[in-house]
Amino acid sequence: MFDQVWLNAHLATMDGPADAPLGIIEDGALAVRDGRIAWIGRRAELPGPAAATTDCDGAWLLPGLIDCHTHLVFGGDRAAEFEQRLAGATYEEIARAGGGIFSSVRATREASEAALLAAATPRLRGLMAEGVTTVEIKSGYGLELESELKMLRVARRLAAAHPVEVATTLLAAHAVPPDFPGGANAYTNFVATEIIPAAATSGLADAVDAFCERIAFSPEQTARVFEAAEAAGLPVKLHADQLSDLGGAALAARHGALSADHLEHASAEGLRAMAEAGSVAVLLPGATYFLRDAKHPDIGAMRAAGVRMALSTDLNPGSSPARSLLLMLNMGCTLFRLTVAEALLGVTRHAAAALGLGDRGVLRAGMRADLALYRIGRPAELCYWLGGNPCVGRVVGGRSA
Amino acid sequence: MFDQVWLNAHLATMDGPADAPLGIIEDGALAVRDGRIAWIGRRAELPGPAAATTDCDGAWLLPGLIDCHTHLVFGGDRAAEFEQRLAGATYEEIARAGGGIFSSVRATREASEAALLAAATPRLRGLMAEGVTTVEIKSGYGLELESELKMLRVARRLAAAHPVEVATTLLAAHAVPPDFPGGANAYTNFVATEIIPAAATSGLADAVDAFCERIAFSPEQTARVFEAAEAAGLPVKLHADQLSDLGGAALAARHGALSADHLEHASAEGLRAMAEAGSVAVLLPGATYFLRDAKHPDIGAMRAAGVRMALSTDLNPGSSPARSLLLMLNMGCTLFRLTVAEALLGVTRHAAAALGLGDRGVLRAGMRADLALYRIGRPAELCYWLGGNPCVGRVVGGRSA
Ligand SMILES: [Zn+2]
Ligand SMILES: [Zn+2]
Repeated sequence: MFDQVWLNAHLATMDGPADAPLGIIEDGALAVRDGRIAWIGRRAELPGPAAATTDCDGAWLLPGLIDCHTHLVFGGDRAAEFEQRLAGATYEEIARAGGGIFSSVRATREASEAALLAAATPRLRGLMAEGVTTVEIKSGYGLELESELKMLRVARRLAAAHPVEVATTLLAAHAVPPDFPGGANAYTNFVATEIIPAAATSGLADAVDAFCERIAFSPEQTARVFEAAEAAGLPVKLHADQLSDLGGAALAARHGALSADHLEHASAEGLRAMAEAGSVAVLLPGATYFLRDAKHPDIGAMRAAGVRMALSTDLNPGSSPARSLLLMLNMGCTLFRLTVAEALLGVTRHAAAALGLGDRGVLRAGMRADLALYRIGRPAELCYWLGGNPCVGRVVGGRSA
Repeated sequence: MFDQVWLNAHLATMDGPADAPLGIIEDGALAVRDGRIAWIGRRAELPGPAAATTDCDGAWLLPGLIDCHTHLVFGGDRAAEFEQRLAGATYEEIARAGGGIFSSVRATREASEAALLAAATPRLRGLMAEGVTTVEIKSGYGLELESELKMLRVARRLAAAHPVEVATTLLAAHAVPPDFPGGANAYTNFVATEIIPAAATSGLADAVDAFCERIAFSPEQTARVFEAAEAAGLPVKLHADQLSDLGGAALAARHGALSADHLEHASAEGLRAMAEAGSVAVLLPGATYFLRDAKHPDIGAMRAAGVRMALSTDLNPGSSPARSLLLMLNMGCTLFRLTVAEALLGVTRHAAAALGLGDRGVLRAGMRADLALYRIGRPAELCYWLGGNPCVGRVVGGRSA
């Protein structure tokens, strides 16, 4: 006896073999018990009765989408800065006028938890409306103990208030706060000895991330952050090799990172190390597009290395104000030439791996019943359209939501 | 006595002077009588009473958006072709497998009017949900008399079924149907002598368009189409200079075209001719993006020439499956470096001009009361975000819709 059965749907399980990874089951059925997928297969073979049945009327059922890299909690926005830059202002002029990342830091520090929650809510709901059932949310605009924890509390409150799963990531090592006494090394030490332990013991962080770049933290400082995370029992991720090759991919791999993200300048050697370590490459085409970055991640080298690729919005106010994961599917295909299967695995199966979540991202018996239902003719339509939203149903932990 | 008043809104009238074209009125009010704007100004100065009042709660009121170049009625889609190309198929292989524009022609010819209506409806509704109140819809996937008229009838039925204004454009000269006896000249003659007169006398077409390009119609053939349109009393538009400079911009100007569209390869001379003729340059960044066209329209030359620029989705299954006009605002700014004001004028005031509609596109007494209400902090947000939809209200002809 099942709690609920979905009938008359085509299924893309994302659990197929290497030569047919979408795992398509036409005219399929999916049964749920206790919030988990209990059975999946062809409708004609569905065993046993169910307490409730949903007729999907020929729509397509996929694993609920996973946006595995966002900064969707922040104060203010940078629309005015965007406007100024288009009107001809230089980065220096904007920085002097109080723009850039530290304007987001200032606005986030000043905002109350309630204000941050209210601002983030429509961003989260927009993602959910497209079929997203798990979202990662990073801190990183506090850059001081209490403000970093405030951001993580807002992320937890977003999860409590909505039918969505939220994975939180502490990104206190996002930028060196210009007001911190002693500079980058002193701030790194503070992150390692104060912020990470506090985030870990409070249970507010599920992982730790850092931004390894000339304008942020060096490989040595990043390693210090990772060691503190390991000591606190938290897995790590890395903003790596976005603007230059500092060996971020290899560094992430050395620390068994769940993922290294961006990777525009990653070396083939670094990518091979990631593949060996099982670290996922998270691609963020919204940032490439928005920054008009001519340097794209080397998808060919990733394929050759056998590194798994995920795809995410990077939703943030400065470099990727992207509020649509479906749009990232299109950008991944159009800009990076991902295949449809690579793109769709990137927001399901491999996005789950990028968060270390082994219980989701594919439709398979025993997995969480997180589902998204789309009114489309074939899965490729999720990548093909620019804008529009064919999502017509969403299930989280077995419940329609 | 007004029929309705909108209070407590910030207004972007799009009717300001050259140095402040957004025409911002903070804490404004807008009054409607008989479907027209009867008064607009600062709230404190609002004269007289109203039968009904809407409190906008600090949201921003703009002219309803105008998408002035779409092909949103078509049979089938080209998602499978998109998938094949990403998997490595060449254009030739896809054409041999029945792909390309003629697959859309085949599917459109075969589809019933009801089927075309059902397929186009969610595309139209998606645009409407973003605050679009006027949409242009072209034929051009029939390429035979009855199928072209069928597409235009579907466009008229879409208008009848939804609170939206639709301007129809006959684009029988979109491609030369490979099955037409006698080839391009014979088909051009058929368009001029049969299709255009039939579309004009039936009242199904508001304008006539053509695709002037080596792979479509020559300048001479285009001129023949334009002359037939003029004889039938219909204004003209042109798909011009997208893939090469055939002098399309100048040709359009010579015929007093409402607009010339695409213009990636247009000459400075052609753009100056357009400015003198009052022809609007319609920019279609979705196609530039989707085709990964390195050649962008020369915005600097357009500014220098003083030609008005509009911005549109070009929503079509082959080269721009773009279902979001807000996304085109972002792409116009990000890819073409339009200013925020240029982009917003391009989907309001100048888009109205591209359709020859003098009664809309700005908030001004006497204009149609077509409005869009957005929950944003400043108009630049409409250009800044990638995805998401801040539209919270829509008024068409004075009625909330
Ligand atoms: Zn990021
Ligand atoms: Zn077009």
